[in-house]
Amino acid sequence: MALKFSIEKELGGQLGRAGILETPHGTIHTPAFVSVGTKASVKALTPEQVKSLGAEVVLANTYHLYLEPGAERVKSFGGLHKFMNWSGPLMTDSGGFQVFSLGVAYGKELSKITKITDPSQMIAERSLDSEVPRLATVGADGVSFRSHIDGSLHYITPEKSIEIQHALGADIIFAFDECTSPTEDIRYQAEALERTHRWAEKSLDYHKSRPNKDTQALFGIVQGGREELLRKRSAEFIGGLEFDGFGIGGSFAKEDMENAVRWVNEILPKEKPRHLLGIGEPEDLFMGVENGVDLFDCVAPTRNGRGGTLYTSKGKINIRNAEFREDTGPLDSKCECEVCKNPRHGGVNYSRAYLCHLYRAHEMLGGTLGSMHNLYFIINLVKRMRQSILDGNFLEFKKDFLLKYE
Amino acid sequence: MALKFSIEKELGGQLGRAGILETPHGTIHTPAFVSVGTKASVKALTPEQVKSLGAEVVLANTYHLYLEPGAERVKSFGGLHKFMNWSGPLMTDSGGFQVFSLGVAYGKELSKITKITDPSQMIAERSLDSEVPRLATVGADGVSFRSHIDGSLHYITPEKSIEIQHALGADIIFAFDECTSPTEDIRYQAEALERTHRWAEKSLDYHKSRPNKDTQALFGIVQGGREELLRKRSAEFIGGLEFDGFGIGGSFAKEDMENAVRWVNEILPKEKPRHLLGIGEPEDLFMGVENGVDLFDCVAPTRNGRGGTLYTSKGKINIRNAEFREDTGPLDSKCECEVCKNPRHGGVNYSRAYLCHLYRAHEMLGGTLGSMHNLYFIINLVKRMRQSILDGNFLEFKKDFLLKYE
Repeated sequence: MALKFSIEKELGGQLGRAGILETPHGTIHTPAFVSVGTKASVKALTPEQVKSLGAEVVLANTYHLYLEPGAERVKSFGGLHKFMNWSGPLMTDSGGFQVFSLGVAYGKELSKITKITDPSQMIAERSLDSEVPRLATVGADGVSFRSHIDGSLHYITPEKSIEIQHALGADIIFAFDECTSPTEDIRYQAEALERTHRWAEKSLDYHKSRPNKDTQALFGIVQGGREELLRKRSAEFIGGLEFDGFGIGGSFAKEDMENAVRWVNEILPKEKPRHLLGIGEPEDLFMGVENGVDLFDCVAPTRNGRGGTLYTSKGKINIRNAEFREDTGPLDSKCECEVCKNPRHGGVNYSRAYLCHLYRAHEMLGGTLGSMHNLYFIINLVKRMRQSILDGNFLEFKKDFLLKYE
Repeated sequence: MALKFSIEKELGGQLGRAGILETPHGTIHTPAFVSVGTKASVKALTPEQVKSLGAEVVLANTYHLYLEPGAERVKSFGGLHKFMNWSGPLMTDSGGFQVFSLGVAYGKELSKITKITDPSQMIAERSLDSEVPRLATVGADGVSFRSHIDGSLHYITPEKSIEIQHALGADIIFAFDECTSPTEDIRYQAEALERTHRWAEKSLDYHKSRPNKDTQALFGIVQGGREELLRKRSAEFIGGLEFDGFGIGGSFAKEDMENAVRWVNEILPKEKPRHLLGIGEPEDLFMGVENGVDLFDCVAPTRNGRGGTLYTSKGKINIRNAEFREDTGPLDSKCECEVCKNPRHGGVNYSRAYLCHLYRAHEMLGGTLGSMHNLYFIINLVKRMRQSILDGNFLEFKKDFLLKYE
């Protein structure tokens, strides 16, 4: 048994809960935000800094590490923990989302959350000719794709994905799946879902046949797009298999996400942890926690941090803006992170003016401090949600936070 | 009195010495390497990381900060220490070197150290038409230049340079000077030197007239290029003024540097500290320490660090090279820095293979870890030189180190 999950307290009348997830490399207090370290590095931060922000767990990407430096190479170095100098809990995704982003979504404005304003978008883009050639093609048993690095050809099956994830050696790994676009029609969604289910069984069978099952936990991924029928069918099917936990996958139209999460979590077995893949904006985190999600990951805090879009309790700001050049205050006066807080300097380590200067001067330190703050902000926000569940005031906390956060 | 310097031990029969330099923001044990934080940030590192490397002092660039974010703005924020969150000793240069690099050297292959292989290069390039228009023009009383950021026109005089440095508020500041190219003829060198001397007096007069003289120390800069006559004349002149210490400036042909430093330090008053400006390669640091230099600064450790050229006790390596992809050893087995050393992971925090991966994958963490290691390596090398002076075995240490270092 690679994982132990216990529920500490439930949100009365709702799906939400606070729990404790024990892994071979340490404990995760859920709900928790998982920091993303795509290529075995949480961008712009040392593992020591990541830890000091209060991060309990990091997720790396199988697809990227498979291509560079290679999973067998990471294994020969003693595994991912040692390779990247992160001694806490680690996750790897299955590569399924990259199949989506390099395939049907390649060169298009589709990502984890897509705003669909024009209903005519809701056709199967798959059938359209695209000017950008896709790098991935989905077949019955797996996915062929070209490396975005050197163009070399690769073929990933469910078994291969698990084999790679075994070589990497994270504490929690994911079944291979197909992530679909919210613009696909129901016929394609259903077809893709059948593939994802078959691949889930194959992933699980392969995993159970290997000794790694004792040290690595396998999560199955629920798909089904925006369709109630498919989402529920997927939750029933994946939830009925002997996974250690579950991922909720998909590229969402924002307005569909809450329904999808609720439909799924009402069905999934309560006693196992659930991870909403690739989602991390404050309003979505509240929605997820309220609807029974235990884990979240998202590149937004670090990607925004590098770009100068920084979270505050009043909403996001672009720190490069001229208005901040003279602002000697902290980024967020309510934040307790290392960037915002220091009793020595009248309460501020780094002023908005200094941060504005760093970004304008193209200093790498800007991206580092911005990522530190953003990651702390989001990790801590989910921690506060957890505490509010324990304290029995989640809904007040949610209301209070979102009222100020624009 | 903004500074107190005492010599702890001298190198028998040589100019070298180990000393203690006390500033309003803390003590510097000399000889010492000064970390460069050009735009109020040691590139890719947090001040906390810089401190943890053993750095005692940071140098920022007046020219850059004058243009962005502006010296008065930094002053209004409470000065440079608070602005950049560095509570230890700080220095600012005078902007003179930027006059050189934006003027005669602009668009040419001239920097702090220029290798002159062809004697025909030794003509006054000043008289040649250049395809690249210069951004700076030297006049009798100051320098006109265009901002490299927005093209705006500026005029810096000695008084103005000191005024800016007073606004920034570093512990040690420098007189305004003109740095000349080693390819200039002696006539121009002599002319420029007269200007530098006049500007030194003006810088000093202005400084002495302001209350800042009590909290900021002013160093005069010795110039004179490669000419023995001029270097000695400059050391006599600048050494005779009431500066708190001295900078040794110039853009050097490598083979001229030792002579210039020795000529100068044999003349400068022994009881005041000397800073060899912009020099920092291991062999030059040994040369400088042996010849009585107390302080060095150089962008090389961080610039090399960002580029993947990393120092080891056997010489510099380019960590991107394919040979390091499989190398699970530390960057330098003799190094005690945070990157190289960790008892937990069989003695290594980050292997050469991981570092190689980070640079190849364009992860910012590569530049951060590379800069941390390089800066530690160079700072610590100078600390070891200091210790060897105290222990009476500097020359053995030098011989031993340089024998292995290629």
